[in-house]
Amino acid sequence: MIDHIRTRASSIGRGGALRLGIGDDCAILAPPRGHEIVVTTDLSLERRHFRRDWHPAQSIGHRTLARGLSDLAAMGARPLAAFLSLALPRSAADDATWLDGFLDGLLSLAAVSKTPLAGGDTAESPSDHILADIVLLGSTPAGKALRRSGAKPGDRLFITGTLGGAAAELAGLATQRENTGGDAAKNSSAARRKNADSSIEHPHLYPQPRLAAGQALLRRSLATACIDISDGLSTDLAHLCEASGVAAEIEAARLPIHPLARALGQPGTLAAALHGGEDYELLFTTSPDGFVPRTLAGVPVTCIGRIVRAGRGHPQISLLEDGNSTPLEPRGWEHLR
Amino acid sequence: MIDHIRTRASSIGRGGALRLGIGDDCAILAPPRGHEIVVTTDLSLERRHFRRDWHPAQSIGHRTLARGLSDLAAMGARPLAAFLSLALPRSAADDATWLDGFLDGLLSLAAVSKTPLAGGDTAESPSDHILADIVLLGSTPAGKALRRSGAKPGDRLFITGTLGGAAAELAGLATQRENTGGDAAKNSSAARRKNADSSIEHPHLYPQPRLAAGQALLRRSLATACIDISDGLSTDLAHLCEASGVAAEIEAARLPIHPLARALGQPGTLAAALHGGEDYELLFTTSPDGFVPRTLAGVPVTCIGRIVRAGRGHPQISLLEDGNSTPLEPRGWEHLR
Repeated sequence: MIDHIRTRASSIGRGGALRLGIGDDCAILAPPRGHEIVVTTDLSLERRHFRRDWHPAQSIGHRTLARGLSDLAAMGARPLAAFLSLALPRSAADDATWLDGFLDGLLSLAAVSKTPLAGGDTAESPSDHILADIVLLGSTPAGKALRRSGAKPGDRLFITGTLGGAAAELAGLATQRENTGGDAAKNSSAARRKNADSSIEHPHLYPQPRLAAGQALLRRSLATACIDISDGLSTDLAHLCEASGVAAEIEAARLPIHPLARALGQPGTLAAALHGGEDYELLFTTSPDGFVPRTLAGVPVTCIGRIVRAGRGHPQISLLEDGNSTPLEPRGWEHLR
Repeated sequence: MIDHIRTRASSIGRGGALRLGIGDDCAILAPPRGHEIVVTTDLSLERRHFRRDWHPAQSIGHRTLARGLSDLAAMGARPLAAFLSLALPRSAADDATWLDGFLDGLLSLAAVSKTPLAGGDTAESPSDHILADIVLLGSTPAGKALRRSGAKPGDRLFITGTLGGAAAELAGLATQRENTGGDAAKNSSAARRKNADSSIEHPHLYPQPRLAAGQALLRRSLATACIDISDGLSTDLAHLCEASGVAAEIEAARLPIHPLARALGQPGTLAAALHGGEDYELLFTTSPDGFVPRTLAGVPVTCIGRIVRAGRGHPQISLLEDGNSTPLEPRGWEHLR
């Protein structure tokens, strides 16, 4: 299996920072001069983060890498290398088709994002579940990485792209499976296409980490704080507020909604946008007087609210809707429950 | 759980290269000037790499980190930071004692080896098995990392420490469990001591990665190739030979045997030394004219054979014993089978 992965991974140009890839005790990287290294790891576990009967193998591979790349995007980093630890149950290990589909999805996104797969580990899974852990290393100019902790009262709050699409598509996969009584992954031929450039159609199966937008934020010194929307707007905004020691107000009418989420109808639409998660958009704050362009690296950005002072007796996040302000509890996170 | 780990991890001095630890989308590291970064990831899965009824929680935490540190040692690297992805089943997550024991073991070794725990991920395990993946970043002066690939015919072959101890102790744990019909982990109070400085007594439960010895090899430019013994001498020597394009001869009489392995009696003693694995010693080669001291960083080193030309019709590894040469097949690896 290691040889197979190694051969397939070698299709992505070395160059860059990678001095030694798969095959020794460690990989070797030469980070760019004057840069810092940023590191993130993300588990992708069957029945927690994906289901083999809902997700095509290509989507599972794509999503495994996308989770890590999105964390790099939130720091404004450029990818240096990825490392994959993968434990397959015998049922999946014996099915070369599954592994190849998984690698198709992972390596397509790796190629587009110029992220060499530089190492990892493999084992037989102790249960019938597929277990993956992805590690991403990236680099940023020293001292410049975007963080969650810099937002100040008065700052404006922005989001890239649209919200709720991933949750809406996931709900569709669940329904589809109930209706066909079977295997959504196999029934959905559209979902198994090779290249992942139509995430607008498949925001859950093929989310696009906002690497270029994050790098643009860093380059222009626009963001006072930044986080990616993995768990849901309500939960990730709470993380940002906590790290920055502030509170926030968001305006429901301003939220940019994905067409699939709009099609759910209320109250599903708003719930998907606020709590759905896995949209992998960037949520960031800017100084009150900072100029923010309408798009960053081709991705629309929308002002959805503002940062206010944290204080007792007033909620960490308030939702303004039809002239009313209500506390918004963090309700994101467990997508397959 | 994340907050708990974060609080406990903060006990290890930051300083060094770590600019930002647990709590943001990524950790931030500033690698030393003129150095390269080495990276390794290692899965530790219940029933593949450990058993909760054989291994105390402290040992599982220690071994999880030791696997990664040993890969750094094999490159001659200094640790920069560790990242832990951990998925616990509800049974273990509800048992604060288990997690604290695991962290005791992991963080004791982290403190001794000056390796801050800088991030990771957590999830609920989809089965009743504990799943861990450890990521280690280290640094070496640029271009100086030890590799598996530099051995040449005529080079001498050395090993640090002793062989077979881990396999012998594991065999003892298995027997102990059969005899007591129960829980070796709970019965062995000696195995639950807090600090891991008596690995000579517990080479399986508390192996000591040879970081200082690896760094000494790098500093003195002694080794032409190096690998750590994780899978077993026969298997790891085959990896080194393959990467270097050479063959090797080892002399049975020269192998330094751990007292626990000696106590097994033949043929168990030799089998444990050749195939046992998990001793986490360093296997390295030196030029024929290179001077090799008797100890490296206080660890004894022993010449156990030499590198020869690879060729058809002659084995990759030969074992010389009582004047006879026999081919030695790689037979290491699956420790819990």
